[in-house]
Amino acid sequence: MAVYTHVPAEEMAALLVRYGVGGLRSAKGIAEGVENSNYLVEAEHGQRFILTLYEKRVDAGDLPFFLGLLDHLADRGLPVPRALKDRDGVQVQQVCGRPACLIEFLPGVSLSHPTPRQAQATGAMLGRMHAALADFAPERPNVLGLPGWHALAARCGDALDGIAPGLAARIADELAWLDAHWPTDLPHAVIHADLFPDNVLMLGDKVAGIIDFYFACREVRAWDLAVTHSAWAFSTDGATFDAAVGAALIAGYAGSFALSDAERAALPALARGAALRFTLTRAWDWLNTPADALVTRKDPLAFLRRLDLYAAKGLEMFA
Amino acid sequence: MAVYTHVPAEEMAALLVRYGVGGLRSAKGIAEGVENSNYLVEAEHGQRFILTLYEKRVDAGDLPFFLGLLDHLADRGLPVPRALKDRDGVQVQQVCGRPACLIEFLPGVSLSHPTPRQAQATGAMLGRMHAALADFAPERPNVLGLPGWHALAARCGDALDGIAPGLAARIADELAWLDAHWPTDLPHAVIHADLFPDNVLMLGDKVAGIIDFYFACREVRAWDLAVTHSAWAFSTDGATFDAAVGAALIAGYAGSFALSDAERAALPALARGAALRFTLTRAWDWLNTPADALVTRKDPLAFLRRLDLYAAKGLEMFA
Repeated sequence: MAVYTHVPAEEMAALLVRYGVGGLRSAKGIAEGVENSNYLVEAEHGQRFILTLYEKRVDAGDLPFFLGLLDHLADRGLPVPRALKDRDGVQVQQVCGRPACLIEFLPGVSLSHPTPRQAQATGAMLGRMHAALADFAPERPNVLGLPGWHALAARCGDALDGIAPGLAARIADELAWLDAHWPTDLPHAVIHADLFPDNVLMLGDKVAGIIDFYFACREVRAWDLAVTHSAWAFSTDGATFDAAVGAALIAGYAGSFALSDAERAALPALARGAALRFTLTRAWDWLNTPADALVTRKDPLAFLRRLDLYAAKGLEMFA
Repeated sequence: MAVYTHVPAEEMAALLVRYGVGGLRSAKGIAEGVENSNYLVEAEHGQRFILTLYEKRVDAGDLPFFLGLLDHLADRGLPVPRALKDRDGVQVQQVCGRPACLIEFLPGVSLSHPTPRQAQATGAMLGRMHAALADFAPERPNVLGLPGWHALAARCGDALDGIAPGLAARIADELAWLDAHWPTDLPHAVIHADLFPDNVLMLGDKVAGIIDFYFACREVRAWDLAVTHSAWAFSTDGATFDAAVGAALIAGYAGSFALSDAERAALPALARGAALRFTLTRAWDWLNTPADALVTRKDPLAFLRRLDLYAAKGLEMFA
């Protein structure tokens, strides 16, 4: 959530020339996306773009996967921001020594307090996205899947107990439970894997954009729905479950894409995996971000609370 | 250069209602301004605004001064972003517990490598601003004037030598020189006091906006020109002086506002004061910002190099 690389206006103007969209009228560094530098750029005639510079945490080797995924979805009518091609057909530029793309600007705002209608629209869009990805062949493994959680927990080690007493043991127990119950036999597909409200641009009750595909990977497909459930159907601190939002999300999804009985039955385990994944990655960031840095550290316990609720209530939360 | 306060989209939409500009179409946190949270906001019909939340480093008691200053300049045709009044005539709102304003959006980009023509246009605009401020009566003292530099140097203390060996003594010597040579008898007026290229929005060679007035204060008026000279006429690292840019800036200014012989003669001393001011504030920030924070620490020595050049060459740099 920062601009890591300052791009001189003169360099941005030179870049726009390659796209034949006229001069540079405005450029603002925006605090969006986890790991990239982003600018909201306006060209001479009012056309707007996002200029994204991929910083070191996005592997440049993954870019063809991400850009191909966005093209695939955009070709099928999904509202995703496509990386544009310049006059020579080039999608990935070099800007200030970093791989960079000029990307379509999408209107819409990220919600903080989604309503059931908005959750339903998001679930429906997630289903449409899964339908559109059924024939998307490229591969990207999920480095933040079950084996990755084990590795991350090991790297955090006993420092987890500095976040909350007993957290290391709690996570070890949960990993053992997930090892025993993870539903590997469900359909796998390429998924978004990070569909938080931050990554959905809404206009009223309508989904106007799905953004930030940089965690997209091949994984148990219904896990995407579980991640979205864990992200949308709780208060920010994870203490309160909003059953109406959760039900609307799943109803929206099931209305636009088939959710099998086996997938539905697995949702509690998948959601426990989702809650653990964000507990762990937030814990890692918590332990490795200075308290006085201006980047906000997100509370890992907000997802431990979700995990507790999923573990205690099981299928009841997906009624 | 960060978004300190997250404003929920729902709260932004409610704010727009008070201004009668329709619903919320887009909102991006932008990395602009030193000490505030800023969002680039688009309303339903395409009208754009900057939503600024004043964080603790801007004294809410100073807001009437700043807003009055912007209104005064906008009324006289200067391209400055006015804080809008809502339907009840209110300019300062409370958003997420902070004073906040909805401000006009101005197009234009901040340059990294201004040309002489662009410097001339900026000097001319600075002169127009000084002319427009001749009858601006409100007072705000310059807390970062000569007495303030003494205080800041004392607070930094010997830690300055950790930035560069001998820096504490160099600054003490310079303060003694400035005490003896500061031209207090020149005309005083309200000035911008921070007219870096960052704070000038350009469209081609035209100044489309002057922004970020939060250091504006009453001070020796020609010091504003000296600050601008120190900010525009050097390479970023301060090692190289661009005489053509410096001369164009001063010519532009003198062409739109009277620069007296006494003011012109004082420019070397005023510029030494400007270079010292930014050396000191950057040194303070350097000593008080963790090296691993995502906020970029600006190099204090980039202004010490300017100081050395101004001290060595004197009036020659303002020919």
